[in-house]
Amino acid sequence: MKKIAIVGLGLMGGSFAKAFIEYSDNIVYGYDIDEKTKKSAKNFGIKIIEDKNELKKMDLTIICLNPLTIKNFVGKNYKYLSKTVMEISGVKNNLHPYIKKLSEKYSFVYKSIHPMAGREVYGFESSLKDLYKNASMIYVDDLDDEEISLFKKIGFNKFVKASPKKHDEMISFTSQLCHVISNAYVLNQKSIYHDGFSAGSLKDMTRVSKIDENLWSELFLLNKDFLIEDINTMIENLEELKNDLKNNDVDRLKAQLKKGNDIRKKMW
Amino acid sequence: MKKIAIVGLGLMGGSFAKAFIEYSDNIVYGYDIDEKTKKSAKNFGIKIIEDKNELKKMDLTIICLNPLTIKNFVGKNYKYLSKTVMEISGVKNNLHPYIKKLSEKYSFVYKSIHPMAGREVYGFESSLKDLYKNASMIYVDDLDDEEISLFKKIGFNKFVKASPKKHDEMISFTSQLCHVISNAYVLNQKSIYHDGFSAGSLKDMTRVSKIDENLWSELFLLNKDFLIEDINTMIENLEELKNDLKNNDVDRLKAQLKKGNDIRKKMW
Repeated sequence: MKKIAIVGLGLMGGSFAKAFIEYSDNIVYGYDIDEKTKKSAKNFGIKIIEDKNELKKMDLTIICLNPLTIKNFVGKNYKYLSKTVMEISGVKNNLHPYIKKLSEKYSFVYKSIHPMAGREVYGFESSLKDLYKNASMIYVDDLDDEEISLFKKIGFNKFVKASPKKHDEMISFTSQLCHVISNAYVLNQKSIYHDGFSAGSLKDMTRVSKIDENLWSELFLLNKDFLIEDINTMIENLEELKNDLKNNDVDRLKAQLKKGNDIRKKMW
Repeated sequence: MKKIAIVGLGLMGGSFAKAFIEYSDNIVYGYDIDEKTKKSAKNFGIKIIEDKNELKKMDLTIICLNPLTIKNFVGKNYKYLSKTVMEISGVKNNLHPYIKKLSEKYSFVYKSIHPMAGREVYGFESSLKDLYKNASMIYVDDLDDEEISLFKKIGFNKFVKASPKKHDEMISFTSQLCHVISNAYVLNQKSIYHDGFSAGSLKDMTRVSKIDENLWSELFLLNKDFLIEDINTMIENLEELKNDLKNNDVDRLKAQLKKGNDIRKKMW
């Protein structure tokens, strides 16, 4: 039985806390600044940390805050951190070297992770014990067998190692670009008249335009080089298809559609 | 008890036939050129039409072929058509005046419809009796109470009237653009390396890149004016977001994300 602290009991942190309580025999602690969240968390059996010195007694601390808030939290509180400390930031290149340095100077072990799961709602009240069921876990620093086993218990079924740069390069495409496209899509003025004219494709296409603008503007800007590159590729592919339409080039158009179809079939 | 013929027993036509058999007391006929399809259809209780003269005895004929094949079928077989004839083409502006003229000259009543449902698989074997459950039906020509009631029986729960032009204008955005974006998305070379780095958003975003290139190149080209306009709007919105990233303009970026979020919340 170990002591696990979750810093930030929002959607992601709350889900970790609920899952560890449900599926492991560890003691789960939570640190949050919101009084309502702390009250709700207590009702779920999460032990609320009021004095940061308690963090020193933890075997594992997982920081589940927005990227720059994680950086800020570690920068201010490294003295309280000990044993293993993880953070779940959706961008790594900007944070990893900074926290790594602090961890080497102040005796804690830093392991950066990114759980690939989410919902279009926020806060502890939206968190779910099964949010991580069948999810993939990207990790930057090696996880040991015990840690892998712990994450498997709460639902993760895939583990992928990546450098901070590789992580950010892939996440730009697999996650951030989806949110960019979804946002750009609904800004078309026809959106509000869709009712009756739409089916599942529009609903799925625009699902992730429901986002917290504070979190996602931060994620986008911290990864802007890769993201701009992916937006440019998207625009180029759209221009190509548009030219085929303009030129009535049915053969080129068919070839592009078939190519996409073939790629997608290999993806899933 | 009426006689309903389905011309073209693919995904859409097969689903109509199966649904009418399951949920109505009408006699369902099917016309198709594929021998394997005809054999399967027979097993579902669909009466196969071998002689086109039989079409003259139908109370309702629904033509479920690709747009230009519908046009071609009606152009060649108008002599066999009688009573009410519907077609389900996904573009209307190109077909409607042509078939309307023929219907006025040769005594059948033409009603153009577009059932808003689909799957990423094709053919009679993929058709489902419940494909139209909770779907919307767009109609160009007024449907009478009996027709509405028939479609409600097989699952349609929304009926929206639109002129051929209005239909094509909206469908360009609510359906065609989704397929264009999804295709352009998977053409990024990162697609094949997504495994482990992706969650639901990439899967949903790229779902409709699984398409029949023959059908969709036809749909896109027959509606290219509206579609090019919508692709341009998409590119403009992407360029705007890209510029905010380039300029590190967090306030403008947040405002765009919030605007999209607010619109999407009104949509569903």
